[in-house]
Amino acid sequence: MAVYTDVTAGALADFLARYDIGTLTSYHGIAEGVENSNFLVQTTKATFILTLYEKRVAREDLPFFIGLMQHLAAHGLSCPQPVAARDGAMLGELADRPAAMVTFLPGVSVRRPTAAHCLELGRGLAKMHLAGADFALKRANALSVGGWRPLFEAAHGRADEVAPGLSATIADELGELESHWPAGLPEGVIHADLFPDNAFFLDERLSGIIDFYFACNDLLAYDVAICLNAWCFEPDGAYNITKGRALLAGYESARPLTPEEGAALPRLARGAALRFLLTRLVDWLNVPEGALVRPKDPLEYLKKLRFHRAVETARDYGLAA
Amino acid sequence: MAVYTDVTAGALADFLARYDIGTLTSYHGIAEGVENSNFLVQTTKATFILTLYEKRVAREDLPFFIGLMQHLAAHGLSCPQPVAARDGAMLGELADRPAAMVTFLPGVSVRRPTAAHCLELGRGLAKMHLAGADFALKRANALSVGGWRPLFEAAHGRADEVAPGLSATIADELGELESHWPAGLPEGVIHADLFPDNAFFLDERLSGIIDFYFACNDLLAYDVAICLNAWCFEPDGAYNITKGRALLAGYESARPLTPEEGAALPRLARGAALRFLLTRLVDWLNVPEGALVRPKDPLEYLKKLRFHRAVETARDYGLAA
Repeated sequence: MAVYTDVTAGALADFLARYDIGTLTSYHGIAEGVENSNFLVQTTKATFILTLYEKRVAREDLPFFIGLMQHLAAHGLSCPQPVAARDGAMLGELADRPAAMVTFLPGVSVRRPTAAHCLELGRGLAKMHLAGADFALKRANALSVGGWRPLFEAAHGRADEVAPGLSATIADELGELESHWPAGLPEGVIHADLFPDNAFFLDERLSGIIDFYFACNDLLAYDVAICLNAWCFEPDGAYNITKGRALLAGYESARPLTPEEGAALPRLARGAALRFLLTRLVDWLNVPEGALVRPKDPLEYLKKLRFHRAVETARDYGLAA
Repeated sequence: MAVYTDVTAGALADFLARYDIGTLTSYHGIAEGVENSNFLVQTTKATFILTLYEKRVAREDLPFFIGLMQHLAAHGLSCPQPVAARDGAMLGELADRPAAMVTFLPGVSVRRPTAAHCLELGRGLAKMHLAGADFALKRANALSVGGWRPLFEAAHGRADEVAPGLSATIADELGELESHWPAGLPEGVIHADLFPDNAFFLDERLSGIIDFYFACNDLLAYDVAICLNAWCFEPDGAYNITKGRALLAGYESARPLTPEEGAALPRLARGAALRFLLTRLVDWLNVPEGALVRPKDPLEYLKKLRFHRAVETARDYGLAA
């Protein structure tokens, strides 16, 4: 969480002059977003979020991300809407970085979601999947099953430093999932990172979904599985089936899962747990010495993976029969 | 620049319930302020800044800082105004830290002030000095002449790592200033850290002064000397007399300097340069390994100190005869 790039008031005022959104009255770097620098910008007309894309985001992906937010907002999803400059461009350059202005969404993210939040989130996720159906651009998911082995290879030699036997557990799970990863399920645009910090609420109503910088084309039900992992476990590691039931019911209120998706859910949930276990493990093993930001604990996802391995059917997650 | 403390939406909503300022609609940690954690908070009624006081700010100083902002705002200075809770308290507790809500000030800080900015800043500084005249609380300046030797003792053994001969230069200057530090000049509440990042402008008009966490009682003209150091040098190290003239004229438009203050200005400016040279030197020599934030260059103030040592009278700064 950081602001990586310094923006002067003069440079920002020049940048804003390309838009028809009033003149600058204030801006503050906000301590959010791991990948990019974000500023809360107020003008004489409204409040916006300005994002400067740092090098971890590939420039060739920006048209997908910006276009997707534009598409989803145009289809009624509450998400940041890119603002076009007078010349129609939604991507500009500021401080030598690609930069975009998006609308500001009210709402706060919740640290401990309730079942009511999970219901709303599930419905919002399904609406996103429906709204994204006819989005023209494509982006492969570099962090789906095909991307996990390279992560494992980067980490396996030191994985047991984090927990004894971790390397063998991952190797076993990885082989199993690579051999039996679900295929033929409905595909579309998924968020792929819809954690509680990427959802805003006002009075338990979902007011917005943000941070589409992992969005890609993949199995829709894999996104559901990511959300079950991210929203329905308690801090002590226990799965909360009330929350799971709410999330799935919310999802199915807008887009019912096919029987095949339901059947695949346990395996997809294992995959989602493995994906976050692996990326967190790599980050954990590669913390720069003296870094101020402590990486997230990979073992949280080892616990979740173990839970999923014991699941027999999606009813264990709370999926209605 | 960081947000040191995590605040949950639930805890913040509970905190805000003590105030009559509407309900929470959004909050974002802002990457500003070296000492404290700051959040930009929006409610159904207005925008505020929430400050959580971290351990570098002594709790016993908080009534001074909060009371001073309240006093200055009540006397017409544009500065953050502490908001009282329903019970009248302007200091509460959130996330186990003392916390205060203040009004949000529009405006942007400027990286490269013009002479017009310096004129406005000088006038604003004088207005602050006048507004603070009858503030009842007192706080000694721990970073005035009496506080410099302990800093030097913490750094002198390694000062020459930063620049050859630096230790001897500082020892010489320190002895000279300790023996001949101005006395008997008008005293009052000074800001003591009024750098460009602590002043907001809208269209070259000063819209606000922020960050009173170094404010204290000291010689008023010492605050002017700090501002000459902070606002009137170019990036190449040259003193810009046009800016100095503007700053001093702005100041004198609201509070003319006494002849004694004018005569003392070169020595006060040397002291101000030495104060920032010393604190920066200590920070420079004590960077935690791998720290993300690079400390400010102490040698910038060595250059400024050398300039001041060559100054003969305050006319060299642009003070009107």
